Amino acid sequence: MESVQNKIVKAALLGAGTVGSGVYELVKERQEDFPHICGAQIEIAKILVRDASKERAGIPSDLLTDSWEEIIADDSISIIIEVMGGIEPAKSYLLEAMKAGKQVVTANKDLIAEHGHELLDTAEKYGCDFKFEAAVAGCVPIIQVLKQSMSSENITEIMGIVNGTTNYILTRMTQSGMSYDEALKEATDLGYAEADPTADVDGLDAGRKIAIMASIAFHSRVTFSDVYIEGIRNITAKDIFYAKEFNSVIKLVGIARKDENGIEVKVLPILIPQEHPLATVNDSFNAVFVHGTASDDTMYYGRGAGKRPTASAVTGDLCTVARHIIEKHSNLHVCSCYKELPIKNIQDTYSRFFLRMQVADRPGVLANITSVFGTSQVSIAQIIQKSRQNGIAELVIITDKVKELYFSDALNILKRLSIVNSISSLIRVY
Amino acid sequence: MESVQNKIVKAALLGAGTVGSGVYELVKERQEDFPHICGAQIEIAKILVRDASKERAGIPSDLLTDSWEEIIADDSISIIIEVMGGIEPAKSYLLEAMKAGKQVVTANKDLIAEHGHELLDTAEKYGCDFKFEAAVAGCVPIIQVLKQSMSSENITEIMGIVNGTTNYILTRMTQSGMSYDEALKEATDLGYAEADPTADVDGLDAGRKIAIMASIAFHSRVTFSDVYIEGIRNITAKDIFYAKEFNSVIKLVGIARKDENGIEVKVLPILIPQEHPLATVNDSFNAVFVHGTASDDTMYYGRGAGKRPTASAVTGDLCTVARHIIEKHSNLHVCSCYKELPIKNIQDTYSRFFLRMQVADRPGVLANITSVFGTSQVSIAQIIQKSRQNGIAELVIITDKVKELYFSDALNILKRLSIVNSISSLIRVY
Repeated sequence: MESVQNKIVKAALLGAGTVGSGVYELVKERQEDFPHICGAQIEIAKILVRDASKERAGIPSDLLTDSWEEIIADDSISIIIEVMGGIEPAKSYLLEAMKAGKQVVTANKDLIAEHGHELLDTAEKYGCDFKFEAAVAGCVPIIQVLKQSMSSENITEIMGIVNGTTNYILTRMTQSGMSYDEALKEATDLGYAEADPTADVDGLDAGRKIAIMASIAFHSRVTFSDVYIEGIRNITAKDIFYAKEFNSVIKLVGIARKDENGIEVKVLPILIPQEHPLATVNDSFNAVFVHGTASDDTMYYGRGAGKRPTASAVTGDLCTVARHIIEKHSNLHVCSCYKELPIKNIQDTYSRFFLRMQVADRPGVLANITSVFGTSQVSIAQIIQKSRQNGIAELVIITDKVKELYFSDALNILKRLSIVNSISSLIRVY
Repeated sequence: MESVQNKIVKAALLGAGTVGSGVYELVKERQEDFPHICGAQIEIAKILVRDASKERAGIPSDLLTDSWEEIIADDSISIIIEVMGGIEPAKSYLLEAMKAGKQVVTANKDLIAEHGHELLDTAEKYGCDFKFEAAVAGCVPIIQVLKQSMSSENITEIMGIVNGTTNYILTRMTQSGMSYDEALKEATDLGYAEADPTADVDGLDAGRKIAIMASIAFHSRVTFSDVYIEGIRNITAKDIFYAKEFNSVIKLVGIARKDENGIEVKVLPILIPQEHPLATVNDSFNAVFVHGTASDDTMYYGRGAGKRPTASAVTGDLCTVARHIIEKHSNLHVCSCYKELPIKNIQDTYSRFFLRMQVADRPGVLANITSVFGTSQVSIAQIIQKSRQNGIAELVIITDKVKELYFSDALNILKRLSIVNSISSLIRVY
């Protein structure tokens, strides 16, 4: 441990927003521990901001700069921590940084999901570390686990609650009987949802994260555009009520599965049985459930967002990279996609369905509907009819596992039947 | 990736029991993937067994040897995988291996808990990798998570269900109303419990694991003898019934906490509220809950034992070590204990208590008992009196958090009171 106290690894922070200031604070808090943990002191030497004259609580103003050129030209800075978000200029900065031999830590999921390929290839080419634990599920260390701890696993399924906003909304709807709009409003008021909640409630954010996880777990490139996505805007209090009747809860999950025919990757709301470990993941917590052929089921749970949890993931990566610098690692082998597995069309995948529909309340209707399912090779597992009024009965059906294509066929026929008034919900079932 | 297919890292396996044969199978299964994952082929070149003439299903007999000398003298073998268990000769073999410059992977928790210090120091001295993920909670990657992903965290609490046998027994008692003896018998019949279940049911196995986790999380050496331990032999169906009344379940957990006064480390059965993530960890599953000042709560869940899950953890370590060899890492910094924090005496720690007692069923008794608690500074949170017969009433009390010393004082006074017939259970409450 001789001279470790004197070694210093310098890093620059791009961005001083919520996460950036969290990282700065955490690095300061752990100053005394870094020499023992990483073999060196870690110093945030510069912070890139748009307006360097603006004061920022807790951050010395002489660290602030609005000049990327100043940072990239500084040879004493060996790590770039990117927490500014967005695609540009983040992408150009990181590419430039790696070409200049600097190591990279980023929390930018949009960037990884869209340009991971190019960034990781560049890292490989220039022998740089490229770490992005905070980009998926905040401080749940799923990237590290998939890349290293489970490196010998044949992973066949990942299922994750990876968007805190939608999980908060669905939890409130489940526990307090709120409507979607009420729960969304509460989430917005609390700062969990953004003014424009599209990326969260339409499943886009979860889609980026499942694409990243699937790529790593299956060693085959999966991009955002490969992901079939449905959001939670159409989930009603009534669906949640019926889910309870089936001893289940509704969660928005990212699912990726692999078999001999390829990869299935999607984000959608599903009914999960109460006993499943993901069913009790509530509020803004995230959790990722992983199935491997040797490990069987494992699950990783924690805060998926927030200043300090995200800063914790970024700083964990920072420690690892600092260690690598001190230990002079080479050949960091950042990209692990060595297969080219086909992505399945959603219509070729198999699901169970929860279907809520309003039908004419008269004899023979049920026989009519069930025969449509039968003809399309859809078998019915459970059926509930609870309410009936004004000649309309509400029917809730749960099917067995069926090819999505066959189910679509049945649905198209049902929609054209005069006895079917409306189909109000269609949700997959685990 | 040029010549990677031609690079070979050779390992020797010490032991060909359940875990050993699992590792051999898994390494064979993943043969084609290793070059991509580790940068080299991995070959199990020799397997040390007691009787090399005995046939072992699936293992070529020419790999078997009963000679440690043959393995240690073979310079082509760079990794020793120890899955034989027990202290000796495992310890001597691993020390010898490291002195000969070989890297080590082990699944031996007894060895780490008792001699971790010496082994890790030796690894540090000789610049060897020393990996032991499988020693704690099977394929739950808690060692990797604590050492690397959470390296920047100030961890203040770890609470883990890390013994599958006792978790199975308590799950059966909870879900099927079995007695302890019935559940233990079932666990033994299913092979979950050994013929002599002492190490499991008396909490010794969990004690070793929490000592290992506490050492890593708090960067301060905690040994098995530092752990205060109570097992589950005295848990009755009635206790489980009352726990349900308090909306809780009883779990055997290892707990380690750190504050400015030192470390508290113990294994004991506790009542956990139904909503806590650990409450739904059932059967033989393990889970470790970690609280850090930045990350907040995280949890890691999976199979804590079994042939393939344990083999998965061992093989994950093997991949990492093979990578390190290919990438020529140095200074692997295996031991992270750089603090010397005091271990608290159990009497100086604070707990909530669940107390079940039989008392005289007559006026004034309750006042008498509650006044004993009051005098000893123990405040009562909840009280239930359900059954009464033959002049005896059963009283169940849950206290607020209190110093264990004060609670012991109150208990000693109660035991001497003539109105107290017996004290049948004393269990901590989360």
